[in-house]
Amino acid sequence: MKPLNPTPRILMGPGPSDAHPRVLKAMATPLIGHLDPEFVGIMDEVKSMVQQTFLTENHLTFVVSAPGSAGMETCLVNLLEPGDECIICINGVFGGRMAEIADRCGATVHKVETEWGKVITTAQIKKALKKCPKPKLVALVHAETSTGALQPLKEISDLVHNAGGLLMVDAVTSYCGVELRVDDWNIDAIYTGTQKNLSAPPGLSPVSFSPAAVKALENRKTKVQSWFLDLSLVKNYWAGAKRAYHHTAPVSSVFALHEALSIVLEEGLENRWERHQTVHKYLKKQLEALGFSYLVQKKYRLPNLNAVYLPKGVDEAKIRKQLLLDYNIEVGGGLGAFAGKIWRIGIMGESCTKNHVNSLVGALKELL
Amino acid sequence: MKPLNPTPRILMGPGPSDAHPRVLKAMATPLIGHLDPEFVGIMDEVKSMVQQTFLTENHLTFVVSAPGSAGMETCLVNLLEPGDECIICINGVFGGRMAEIADRCGATVHKVETEWGKVITTAQIKKALKKCPKPKLVALVHAETSTGALQPLKEISDLVHNAGGLLMVDAVTSYCGVELRVDDWNIDAIYTGTQKNLSAPPGLSPVSFSPAAVKALENRKTKVQSWFLDLSLVKNYWAGAKRAYHHTAPVSSVFALHEALSIVLEEGLENRWERHQTVHKYLKKQLEALGFSYLVQKKYRLPNLNAVYLPKGVDEAKIRKQLLLDYNIEVGGGLGAFAGKIWRIGIMGESCTKNHVNSLVGALKELL
Repeated sequence: MKPLNPTPRILMGPGPSDAHPRVLKAMATPLIGHLDPEFVGIMDEVKSMVQQTFLTENHLTFVVSAPGSAGMETCLVNLLEPGDECIICINGVFGGRMAEIADRCGATVHKVETEWGKVITTAQIKKALKKCPKPKLVALVHAETSTGALQPLKEISDLVHNAGGLLMVDAVTSYCGVELRVDDWNIDAIYTGTQKNLSAPPGLSPVSFSPAAVKALENRKTKVQSWFLDLSLVKNYWAGAKRAYHHTAPVSSVFALHEALSIVLEEGLENRWERHQTVHKYLKKQLEALGFSYLVQKKYRLPNLNAVYLPKGVDEAKIRKQLLLDYNIEVGGGLGAFAGKIWRIGIMGESCTKNHVNSLVGALKELL
Repeated sequence: MKPLNPTPRILMGPGPSDAHPRVLKAMATPLIGHLDPEFVGIMDEVKSMVQQTFLTENHLTFVVSAPGSAGMETCLVNLLEPGDECIICINGVFGGRMAEIADRCGATVHKVETEWGKVITTAQIKKALKKCPKPKLVALVHAETSTGALQPLKEISDLVHNAGGLLMVDAVTSYCGVELRVDDWNIDAIYTGTQKNLSAPPGLSPVSFSPAAVKALENRKTKVQSWFLDLSLVKNYWAGAKRAYHHTAPVSSVFALHEALSIVLEEGLENRWERHQTVHKYLKKQLEALGFSYLVQKKYRLPNLNAVYLPKGVDEAKIRKQLLLDYNIEVGGGLGAFAGKIWRIGIMGESCTKNHVNSLVGALKELL
């Protein structure tokens, strides 16, 4: 087998983003046991830093040992039982995925759908709550990675809680990149990934559950259909006094997550949000000058994932391939209905610098 | 947050084992995109090396993006549907876990149980097949990590196939350490972990499915209850012509797995099996001289995971703690009924050297 020497890339797609050298170095730390008291201490620190970055005091805050999609499944399989009613909001790929998983949980799924690239309105939620006045759970995607839309959550949160429901949020692409306040916004279940604005390698999913969500877990009548993701078991490993063995944690990935979280807290969460806005404006101005236009209305536009139509007449696949092969710059293509129509340009975490933007824009000026 | 500097350990527990510096270096390789053509090439190479180390030509061979327990769940949720009958053999923790998951799949579970530390006999399987003559699946643990027992599989495989069933095997602690021949032994579904004899960091689970298992997947009447582990979706990412996006693969962990598999193939699979036997004999002689005795009968003893009773009067928890804190050597305690009674001493992969044994034995001579 030939040696593993992948070509270094500049990662400006929908994730993974570039990892900080400190995070890569942490990945290479010699292993210790997953029940070693030192590892348990590291898990405690990770938990505390996840709480700080989610802006929550939720006790049931930990890291699922698998990518963001497994975090999504963790929330749904634990909070839904056969026969439960839920409202799932869909304005892109990931809302659709939540509905698919909720259906596999045996729940009755009421879908609230809107055009991709737009956000869900409070009027839509009110209408859905008329059809389904007592939902167990209402789920939304805070930052739709497939479209670059940023969903306002605060008003919807009030509507959901007035109806006695739990609010579940996908924060994969918003976490550590844009304003996100789990406790202030009354979010009951949230999951994210590590490979976006956090700039750690993909493979883990930080999650958090409010006291109300924990009560729902405790009141389940049936076993969770997934053993691997069953919170009643996993919580004893991550948060129990005895740290009961459940599965072998991905030690190296937890080391890397620890380092990435430390970097976020050193920068400061609000400074990091601000940096994503600043670099977004810098990118936007230059993209528009080149003839790109944004899919999402300004008010609901994610700063860190720029979903843009290409200038007229440009062969997107060809230019995207040249960017990758000739300039080693990765940008993302469109998903679903937007395949072949848009690009998704990520400026997330360590990839969120003016140098990244200048590399991309310089290459585009030559290619277009 | 204080810097991440865990104390270096000598890992001689039930896993993780020590990782080769080449593997740690691979973990620190700068990230590339999970749909980058170079990453797709690396996935193809990993798939080929997993086939070579499983000794199989199964097309549906890939790596689950989560630890071994998720590999177990992948096999069961995909092969079992509500109403299916299966036989699950239990002689330790991991057989019990398989039965628990099969139950959550809605299958009727016929348990074949034997005392922990012993193996399942062909007579027991014959008897179970009288009660359940047409099982969809029969599952066994090849190497029981909780007891150190090595389960013979060949005769049982014939019995299972004569009854028209699929043979599912847990190879977490046998893979790359003891003889394991997926095609020769007619294993239909197999999963393993990366952190044992392969000496890669924990977090991934190589799996493989025979053509008969694939037929069973294709003939399912219901959707797989897990979206994240649904092979009908995952296979399009790992093995499909179009490499359809399913979830974001843990890029760095796949790099490390690639390097660890390369190291196994450079050594040679049979040489590696032999090395585990040689070092086991070296360890055994010295452990017995110190008054340790083996839990498992010689014929069914795993070479790489040594489950041993301590010399009389020794406070196992105290000595195990001293080994860890004063000598930085990790050995495992007992699980379940064996908690406080046995140690599980792993000599797996990079931890399978005479130097490791000498460090452990030297420390024990001082402590006992």
